[in-house]
Amino acid sequence: MAVYTEVPDDEMAAFVARYGIGDLLSAKGIAEGVSNSNFLVHTTAGFYILTLYEERTDAADLPFFICLMEHLARRGLTCPQPLKAADGQAVGRLAGRPAAIVTFLDGLSVRRPNAQHCAELGRGLALLHQAGSDFAMERVNDLSVPGWRPLAEQAGAQADTVSPGLARRVLAEIAEHEAHWPADLPRGVIHADLFPNNVFFIQNRLSGLIDFYFACTDALAYDLAICLNAWCFEADASFNLTKGQALLAGYESVRRLTDAEVAALPVLCRGSALRFLLTRLVDWLNVPPGALVKPLDPMEYDRKLAFHQRVRDAGDYGLRR
Amino acid sequence: MAVYTEVPDDEMAAFVARYGIGDLLSAKGIAEGVSNSNFLVHTTAGFYILTLYEERTDAADLPFFICLMEHLARRGLTCPQPLKAADGQAVGRLAGRPAAIVTFLDGLSVRRPNAQHCAELGRGLALLHQAGSDFAMERVNDLSVPGWRPLAEQAGAQADTVSPGLARRVLAEIAEHEAHWPADLPRGVIHADLFPNNVFFIQNRLSGLIDFYFACTDALAYDLAICLNAWCFEADASFNLTKGQALLAGYESVRRLTDAEVAALPVLCRGSALRFLLTRLVDWLNVPPGALVKPLDPMEYDRKLAFHQRVRDAGDYGLRR
Repeated sequence: MAVYTEVPDDEMAAFVARYGIGDLLSAKGIAEGVSNSNFLVHTTAGFYILTLYEERTDAADLPFFICLMEHLARRGLTCPQPLKAADGQAVGRLAGRPAAIVTFLDGLSVRRPNAQHCAELGRGLALLHQAGSDFAMERVNDLSVPGWRPLAEQAGAQADTVSPGLARRVLAEIAEHEAHWPADLPRGVIHADLFPNNVFFIQNRLSGLIDFYFACTDALAYDLAICLNAWCFEADASFNLTKGQALLAGYESVRRLTDAEVAALPVLCRGSALRFLLTRLVDWLNVPPGALVKPLDPMEYDRKLAFHQRVRDAGDYGLRR
Repeated sequence: MAVYTEVPDDEMAAFVARYGIGDLLSAKGIAEGVSNSNFLVHTTAGFYILTLYEERTDAADLPFFICLMEHLARRGLTCPQPLKAADGQAVGRLAGRPAAIVTFLDGLSVRRPNAQHCAELGRGLALLHQAGSDFAMERVNDLSVPGWRPLAEQAGAQADTVSPGLARRVLAEIAEHEAHWPADLPRGVIHADLFPNNVFFIQNRLSGLIDFYFACTDALAYDLAICLNAWCFEADASFNLTKGQALLAGYESVRRLTDAEVAALPVLCRGSALRFLLTRLVDWLNVPPGALVKPLDPMEYDRKLAFHQRVRDAGDYGLRR
């Protein structure tokens, strides 16, 4: 749930007026997006989403995100479309922050995805990778291997207050990946945060993808590893092979994985589990007093990491050849 | 900001289907309403608000609230309209709680009301009192004088941890009102919680009232006292006489106050300041660990109470005769 920046109604009305979408009729803060504040805005022209970019989003990255959403839509993917203001710019300033207005997407995110949802997701992810294949801009994934040691150092010995031995386990895992992380895998635009809350369905068909604010240029199969972690485990951290099969088969129905990607899948799953373990751990240890955000449990990803450490090959995730 | 009950998407879709408003297309938790969870729901028929009634709302009171909103709309007041499900009932059950769907109202709530907003509010409040004058149902105001001592006892000596001497000040004020609270004032339906976040404006004209879940049968002028407290003070607890004049003149442009109401206004203002002081104090002292709700500052109402204790008569609020 997002912390909402309070926006005076007259400033909101003036901001909306610059986008040529009629007069502002209502604006409601919505519980969507983790790192930014979002408002559902109604004007005489329709419904829109207004996003205020909070500290976690680097303003210098906004052109990448905005241009990516425009590019993907031109390639037929359903995702929010940034509107241009009277000055031709998508991003303006509101309440002291960068802000943009995007189109409103229908669809419901599923809290408990089933295998059919996973198959749809796999197909949608591959279509995203195809649609992004000729996107010209690049953005480094600052939450990949080089970003992990600084996160572990931020948590420090305090990690052991969350789980005994966690600090040591995390450092061993980081050293392993620093030495052996796969290079030369097919690269391109990845979403990098395609959790169930960022995927919309209408009557069990994937209807759209949202929240591109972690998108970057990285190994395509790493995105698949993030989805295996986010969609195919049960609440008790057990891996659901039927969902894994569905996700991978859905993906390969659009884009077949290379042999190198198949071989790398277990280590990519370990790495992506470690990435979410680390960011959640740092958030968990740094909840400011009076915060309105409840941090996500880092231990969920510690348990998923342990599963991946025992995996033999991509067949254990349900890849069938 | 409300705490949201998580509702599985299939349960949400099944609930909405019972109301004959087409298929569910999206549902977003919104930051509106303090005591209940609200979702902005989009269906093939349009936009609606779905409310889940949390613990603070007594299910036995729901027929009063639902019938009141229907009654007020028939009398021409703009407020949310409850929809009836296939079984003819407005209230059903969702995620283990009572739930209802009401129409979506356009409009923006103002965070910093000016005198024009106060004039509009005064007029709107009087129109609400007129529209409610022939409403047949009654509901006791459980947050009036008899409810105050139990709240003070709940806070107990802990009140002094918020402000030295507060426990004693509160008890003295309660004793005063228990002895001298005005009887025989004109009564009827009051909103009882008409804070700026519950009043919508479109281009500075009042466009609708929401959140009737504290509405009850009580002295009409008590509602006016609540509004003087909620709309006419500045952030530093100083009273803005221009706003007070505007609110009272707006009210009297529709319904003239009786002499007894005019005479009682200062004590009604003291009482309503005490009511919000007490409920905020109890909330402040009982924030559960990990709560997502930031409690409102009780001391704001302690300072307002001090202002009312020095008032000579209704003229000090800006009433002109």
